[in-house]
Amino acid sequence: MIVDNALYHQGQRVPLGGDADDQSLGAARVPCDPGDFQWIGIHDPSPDELDLIARTFDLHPLAVEDAGDSHQRPKLERYGDTLFLVLKTLWYVDEEDAVETGEINMFVGQDFVVTVRHGQGIDLATARRDLEHRAKVLEHGPMAVLYAICDRVVDEYEKVGEALEEDVDEVEESVFSEARTDDSNRIYVLKREIAEVRRAVMPLREPMRKFAMGVDDRITAETATYFRDVSDHLQRVSEVVDNLDVLLSTAFDAHLARISVQQNEDMRKISAGAALIVVPTLIAGIYGMNFDHMPELHWTYGYPFALMLMVGVSLGLFAWFKRSGWL
Amino acid sequence: MIVDNALYHQGQRVPLGGDADDQSLGAARVPCDPGDFQWIGIHDPSPDELDLIARTFDLHPLAVEDAGDSHQRPKLERYGDTLFLVLKTLWYVDEEDAVETGEINMFVGQDFVVTVRHGQGIDLATARRDLEHRAKVLEHGPMAVLYAICDRVVDEYEKVGEALEEDVDEVEESVFSEARTDDSNRIYVLKREIAEVRRAVMPLREPMRKFAMGVDDRITAETATYFRDVSDHLQRVSEVVDNLDVLLSTAFDAHLARISVQQNEDMRKISAGAALIVVPTLIAGIYGMNFDHMPELHWTYGYPFALMLMVGVSLGLFAWFKRSGWL
Amino acid sequence: MIVDNALYHQGQRVPLGGDADDQSLGAARVPCDPGDFQWIGIHDPSPDELDLIARTFDLHPLAVEDAGDSHQRPKLERYGDTLFLVLKTLWYVDEEDAVETGEINMFVGQDFVVTVRHGQGIDLATARRDLEHRAKVLEHGPMAVLYAICDRVVDEYEKVGEALEEDVDEVEESVFSEARTDDSNRIYVLKREIAEVRRAVMPLREPMRKFAMGVDDRITAETATYFRDVSDHLQRVSEVVDNLDVLLSTAFDAHLARISVQQNEDMRKISAGAALIVVPTLIAGIYGMNFDHMPELHWTYGYPFALMLMVGVSLGLFAWFKRSGWL
Amino acid sequence: MIVDNALYHQGQRVPLGGDADDQSLGAARVPCDPGDFQWIGIHDPSPDELDLIARTFDLHPLAVEDAGDSHQRPKLERYGDTLFLVLKTLWYVDEEDAVETGEINMFVGQDFVVTVRHGQGIDLATARRDLEHRAKVLEHGPMAVLYAICDRVVDEYEKVGEALEEDVDEVEESVFSEARTDDSNRIYVLKREIAEVRRAVMPLREPMRKFAMGVDDRITAETATYFRDVSDHLQRVSEVVDNLDVLLSTAFDAHLARISVQQNEDMRKISAGAALIVVPTLIAGIYGMNFDHMPELHWTYGYPFALMLMVGVSLGLFAWFKRSGWL
Amino acid sequence: MIVDNALYHQGQRVPLGGDADDQSLGAARVPCDPGDFQWIGIHDPSPDELDLIARTFDLHPLAVEDAGDSHQRPKLERYGDTLFLVLKTLWYVDEEDAVETGEINMFVGQDFVVTVRHGQGIDLATARRDLEHRAKVLEHGPMAVLYAICDRVVDEYEKVGEALEEDVDEVEESVFSEARTDDSNRIYVLKREIAEVRRAVMPLREPMRKFAMGVDDRITAETATYFRDVSDHLQRVSEVVDNLDVLLSTAFDAHLARISVQQNEDMRKISAGAALIVVPTLIAGIYGMNFDHMPELHWTYGYPFALMLMVGVSLGLFAWFKRSGWL
Ligand SMILES: [Mg+2]
Ligand SMILES: [Mg+2]
Ligand SMILES: [Mg+2]
Ligand SMILES: [Mg+2]
Ligand SMILES: [Mg+2]
Ligand SMILES: [Mg+2]
Ligand SMILES: [Mg+2]
Ligand SMILES: [Mg+2]
Ligand SMILES: [Mg+2]
Ligand SMILES: [Mg+2]
Ligand SMILES: [Mg+2]
Ligand SMILES: [Mg+2]
Ligand SMILES: [Mg+2]
Ligand SMILES: [Mg+2]
Ligand SMILES: [Mg+2]
Ligand SMILES: [Mg+2]
Ligand SMILES: [Mg+2]
Ligand SMILES: [Mg+2]
Ligand SMILES: [Mg+2]
Ligand SMILES: [Mg+2]
Ligand SMILES: [Mg+2]
Ligand SMILES: [Mg+2]
Ligand SMILES: [Mg+2]
Ligand SMILES: [Mg+2]
Ligand SMILES: [Mg+2]
Ligand SMILES: [Mg+2]
Ligand SMILES: [Mg+2]
Ligand SMILES: [Mg+2]
Ligand SMILES: [Mg+2]
Ligand SMILES: [Mg+2]
Ligand SMILES: [Mg+2]
Repeated sequence: MIVDNALYHQGQRVPLGGDADDQSLGAARVPCDPGDFQWIGIHDPSPDELDLIARTFDLHPLAVEDAGDSHQRPKLERYGDTLFLVLKTLWYVDEEDAVETGEINMFVGQDFVVTVRHGQGIDLATARRDLEHRAKVLEHGPMAVLYAICDRVVDEYEKVGEALEEDVDEVEESVFSEARTDDSNRIYVLKREIAEVRRAVMPLREPMRKFAMGVDDRITAETATYFRDVSDHLQRVSEVVDNLDVLLSTAFDAHLARISVQQNEDMRKISAGAALIVVPTLIAGIYGMNFDHMPELHWTYGYPFALMLMVGVSLGLFAWFKRSGWL
Repeated sequence: MIVDNALYHQGQRVPLGGDADDQSLGAARVPCDPGDFQWIGIHDPSPDELDLIARTFDLHPLAVEDAGDSHQRPKLERYGDTLFLVLKTLWYVDEEDAVETGEINMFVGQDFVVTVRHGQGIDLATARRDLEHRAKVLEHGPMAVLYAICDRVVDEYEKVGEALEEDVDEVEESVFSEARTDDSNRIYVLKREIAEVRRAVMPLREPMRKFAMGVDDRITAETATYFRDVSDHLQRVSEVVDNLDVLLSTAFDAHLARISVQQNEDMRKISAGAALIVVPTLIAGIYGMNFDHMPELHWTYGYPFALMLMVGVSLGLFAWFKRSGWL
Repeated sequence: MIVDNALYHQGQRVPLGGDADDQSLGAARVPCDPGDFQWIGIHDPSPDELDLIARTFDLHPLAVEDAGDSHQRPKLERYGDTLFLVLKTLWYVDEEDAVETGEINMFVGQDFVVTVRHGQGIDLATARRDLEHRAKVLEHGPMAVLYAICDRVVDEYEKVGEALEEDVDEVEESVFSEARTDDSNRIYVLKREIAEVRRAVMPLREPMRKFAMGVDDRITAETATYFRDVSDHLQRVSEVVDNLDVLLSTAFDAHLARISVQQNEDMRKISAGAALIVVPTLIAGIYGMNFDHMPELHWTYGYPFALMLMVGVSLGLFAWFKRSGWL
Repeated sequence: MIVDNALYHQGQRVPLGGDADDQSLGAARVPCDPGDFQWIGIHDPSPDELDLIARTFDLHPLAVEDAGDSHQRPKLERYGDTLFLVLKTLWYVDEEDAVETGEINMFVGQDFVVTVRHGQGIDLATARRDLEHRAKVLEHGPMAVLYAICDRVVDEYEKVGEALEEDVDEVEESVFSEARTDDSNRIYVLKREIAEVRRAVMPLREPMRKFAMGVDDRITAETATYFRDVSDHLQRVSEVVDNLDVLLSTAFDAHLARISVQQNEDMRKISAGAALIVVPTLIAGIYGMNFDHMPELHWTYGYPFALMLMVGVSLGLFAWFKRSGWL
Repeated sequence: MIVDNALYHQGQRVPLGGDADDQSLGAARVPCDPGDFQWIGIHDPSPDELDLIARTFDLHPLAVEDAGDSHQRPKLERYGDTLFLVLKTLWYVDEEDAVETGEINMFVGQDFVVTVRHGQGIDLATARRDLEHRAKVLEHGPMAVLYAICDRVVDEYEKVGEALEEDVDEVEESVFSEARTDDSNRIYVLKREIAEVRRAVMPLREPMRKFAMGVDDRITAETATYFRDVSDHLQRVSEVVDNLDVLLSTAFDAHLARISVQQNEDMRKISAGAALIVVPTLIAGIYGMNFDHMPELHWTYGYPFALMLMVGVSLGLFAWFKRSGWL
């Protein structure tokens, strides 16, 4: 679905045909003066829509094929004068400790930008509106749009990184709490989600580094500085999640050790508890023997004596186990 | 066995001698006009057949030795004007979670292509038929055949990757299910199959990257773009299986932790169950003592009292163990 | 808060306006003669203060944004003539085996230095005072200030490294002591703190290496030698903490093995202890049988004989378990 | 011991002095026509023999020192015009799953080859005889000898790799068999032997790659192709053993998991078995109580009733444990 | 303490002032003819001694600072014409499986060598004496001294490597012996000592490689060959200890598996032993029941029958457990 389509002249949105908010948006190419550019946004396009856009902007079939499929890895490709950038959008769903992934494909030509969004993630409409209020930036043309989207996407990555940091803190606390928690499931889920973040972040570093080094002649020294900032933030996220991953591995090892220690403690507790029963049972067995001559059996207080012997021995054992830490 | 042999002129198959489907295919070299090329396909060749082909197309003995043996690693070699490419074909057999491997060897000369297939895998006959319907592509000559086969082989890799993703999802579910499953065998098998995929994918990346960078003067800028696409898909598969491998390792660790936790739970359950027996046994022992003066023994309801004491104590213990999670 | 502001002329502090210790420090740019430079120090600045400084020294907004946020990674960036360096300061709190992290941001221009400190760490005021006593060094201008701060920060890293070495020695001793210590928590904490050190040290190596190689034309061969020294010390710290990390992993594995061995020993001890009770219980059971013809029951000393049999068998078992190492 | 010494002229062995099989072989240098070369083979030489050879062929003392000691790592060194290559020979002893290592040192000059063999491994005499039947190859001079030996050595590596693959298959089967096998010892031995193979294979890759790239002006494009083949086979072996190593690690993990699962199963079996004894014991205890009024005691069939109660309860428990998988 | 000081002229030691063994050695610079050089040796110098030497030979303060502190990492630095090399000396103390570390700092100028030794390690005095007997080598000037010391230090590394190989063999044997040994402590110690060797060996490889490549114009092609030999031996040691480290990790894993298997065996043994007691106890309980009609109780040989029943059942169980491997 084509969700927006506008011409930008000297950093200002130019109403196309009728109204900028016109819902009957077409994919037609708008004639541009030099320095102007057209930005068309599509969301979960049908093959036909993609095909129309491809013909309108003369996009390469291989790139269009990739843009139609939401399982690409982040990458930057150049087809003639047109850059093709695939970005993963990430967001965090706290209820499930889950990281979710969407995708943005961007075609950046000399005088046009086509953004193709799959799934959720950052709100490109808001991103566009924000950008339309910064004419100074928009004046730089299509590369400014590219920067603005990358910047916003990476800002979201940082939020996801922070959410995961909180989760890892919770895991850490749980592992080392006295409570017997089964943390392995949560550790597994977090490691899987961290791997998901990594798959978005790692391959994007090279394209951002290239932009920061001014790989394209449309990137001025000033623009490159801005891409260097994105690149730096990307590096930061990448180090954060790498660190979390290592922490989780260490926490998992500690969790394993704890399980073993707890089993040991349980075994001691159980054994001590058993001793409190079997020793009186032995005493009862002794006084259940049928010897003719067992003086205690004839004592007036023989029975209470035997009971107290049992209780006394058990209390003694209890004290001993308590002192030695088995109970 | 020589399975097909044809001349291609301006992207069109030219009937050789008699009929294209003629089963009495020979290995003879067909005289080519400039721009034309001959494509001969062999399957599980005998040494004699290979030898004949080698003499006909003047292939290097080292390459022919490799082509006759199906245990090569993927690689690209140049012998004079002829490229020699070894590809692994992969397919997935769902019943056994098994990845199977075949091999394709290709000799790509100025005006000929020799494909040598070992074992199963992609159906080269179908690949050829499909290609014959795309004259535009075939016009590009032998490199187009090379591309078409690489593209198809790598598409199969992606399917294998998806099948393995499903398997890993199943393992994940099984590991974290309440049921006591012995997942280590399946994890082992999957890791072994993933290693098999890796051995096919990893060494192929360099040849595809070389084609994408136009390492051969027969590769035009346009063709290179197509190889870049193959290279990109190969990278995607490689990242998918790397990720699966890491996930399986993490799942295995979680499985180990689960086994320990379950053993702990079993031990507690067993101990609690034992207590329900040994405590009444102690009571029975007490009333089996032979003291002269044991008032309970002479009570009219002494016996029911003792039985109810046993049941009462056991119920009390049961409730206590339930509350503390041991039962 | 602006904590100090001074002009340095030929390595000497020049009183600004009124008094060097004047608390009403402003952020105004002081006119400099060639070779002179101004050094202004800020601590936990408010956005307004940062903004004022940025306008005064014409700092790039992206760098200022980073300087206002204390979660940067160490890095070196160049904005026009101005270098922007982010450093992490580290210190060690022995009570909690904790490494703490602060941050210093430095803007180094042709004739000015702006230092922005977040949190604790090295005392920049003392660093400045020390430097003011070394006119020879200060004469080298802003790069000398940069060196002096880097040198001091890295010296602190080395102290942290030594403190962690002591901690690891303690862990090692604890793991291999006879006492049953739960070392996994401490090992976890130390590995986490070591990772914190690494995040400060690793990314700083590249900037220091660049300075050591004279990346900036303000760095003379002599100055480069001094940065090489810092770079070398940084490398030393990095190897120390890497080594500690590996040692901790190995110690953790040994800890796991120990837990298993101890559980094994416990199980044997418990079993041996149980045998000392159940064997006499069997004897008591035997003499509790109701056969008509059991000669021992009628012996005068049958009862003492039975008791001594119990004690004797238990002593025999005890000796046997002792000898075989089970008790 | 000097084991052979011959001159090769245009690919043909030239009888030296008397007889080619003459056992009184000396180390004398034979005058060569241009294009001819001398090949002398030594086995486990004494220091004196080595010294004599060194003086005869003017070999560098450092290389001679290395050639006299069989604990070198594979390497290629150039001393003036003479190449010095150290190769490890490997063979497999099936009875012990053992890989054994020998060593070949080769000095390759403009018109001579000196081969120094330590220990067993490939039969250089046979290698020489085979080569003498391929005059076409021998015509290429000393480099052809170098190639022929490398090729044969690497062929042996591939056989060792195959033998290890069989061993790993056996381990895999054993680990996942129902039988309780202690596979850790065998896995350890295999990993150690694999490391031994790696120490032979890995360092040889660089020399072979250099030859394949024609590092020496005596290597023609055609010869380089042959070294590329050796290099490729070496790479194949290296990937095979890497893969085996990873498989063994995974199999070891699965073995650990199995041990835990089996311990768990044992514990359940033991507990179930114990229940079959202690419950009847409780019943016996109850009917051993001395209450005045216990009706069952006076039943005519009280005793059989009690026995059947015991058996019945045990059978019930048995069925229950069977159903729940504990027995 | 200055331990030796001499002038070398054409490879010969020249008596300084009075006697070469004169204990009143000073640090004075001796005037040198071109080609001559002075070699002064210091051991555990005081700050004053170092300061005097520094002024005498015009050494850079940063290098002198490092030379005064024995916690440097191996490194090569150039300060003007003077090379500064830090080497770790290693030796092995068999009683404790311990590797000990000392340090040598060398300043190598155009016409002087200053060696600063910390702690024990190689005997520099002997090294000097040996060298003084090889005038041919000494003629090459200061670089020959540098080579001779590096060669000797690395020879010691190889001895340490061999001693560690023996230790690992012992560990291997112990782990797989039937005896229950607690090998984790020894494995830990060996891994720690291997890490110590690595810290000496790894960083020295780069300096040696640089010398072998003739990084300094005082290194002739011939000298470079000798440094290449040192570099090669260093590489050998490094591979030896890497291999040992991996072997120890694998042995540790096998040790862990063994502990688990042994615990399993213990548990079975204990359970079987318990069965031998509790089954007779049940029988005793049965004949301790108080039923009016229990025929066995009135048999003349009822008691012996019961005892023999107990013994018989126990023997049967014993045989069964033996056969099934539980005892
Ligand atoms: Mg959360
Ligand atoms: Mg939460
Ligand atoms: Mg997710
Ligand atoms: Mg941003
Ligand atoms: Mg917990
Ligand atoms: Mg930033
Ligand atoms: Mg499946
Ligand atoms: Mg399935
Ligand atoms: Mg398979
Ligand atoms: Mg495709
Ligand atoms: Mg499960
Ligand atoms: Mg694609
Ligand atoms: Mg501490
Ligand atoms: Mg402390
Ligand atoms: Mg901290
Ligand atoms: Mg310092
Ligand atoms: Mg301890
Ligand atoms: Mg230093
Ligand atoms: Mg075998
Ligand atoms: Mg071996
Ligand atoms: Mg071969
Ligand atoms: Mg076999
Ligand atoms: Mg098994
Ligand atoms: Mg081959
Ligand atoms: Mg030793
Ligand atoms: Mg040591
Ligand atoms: Mg040496
Ligand atoms: Mg020893
Ligand atoms: Mg032993
Ligand atoms: Mg052992
Ligand atoms: Mg050597």
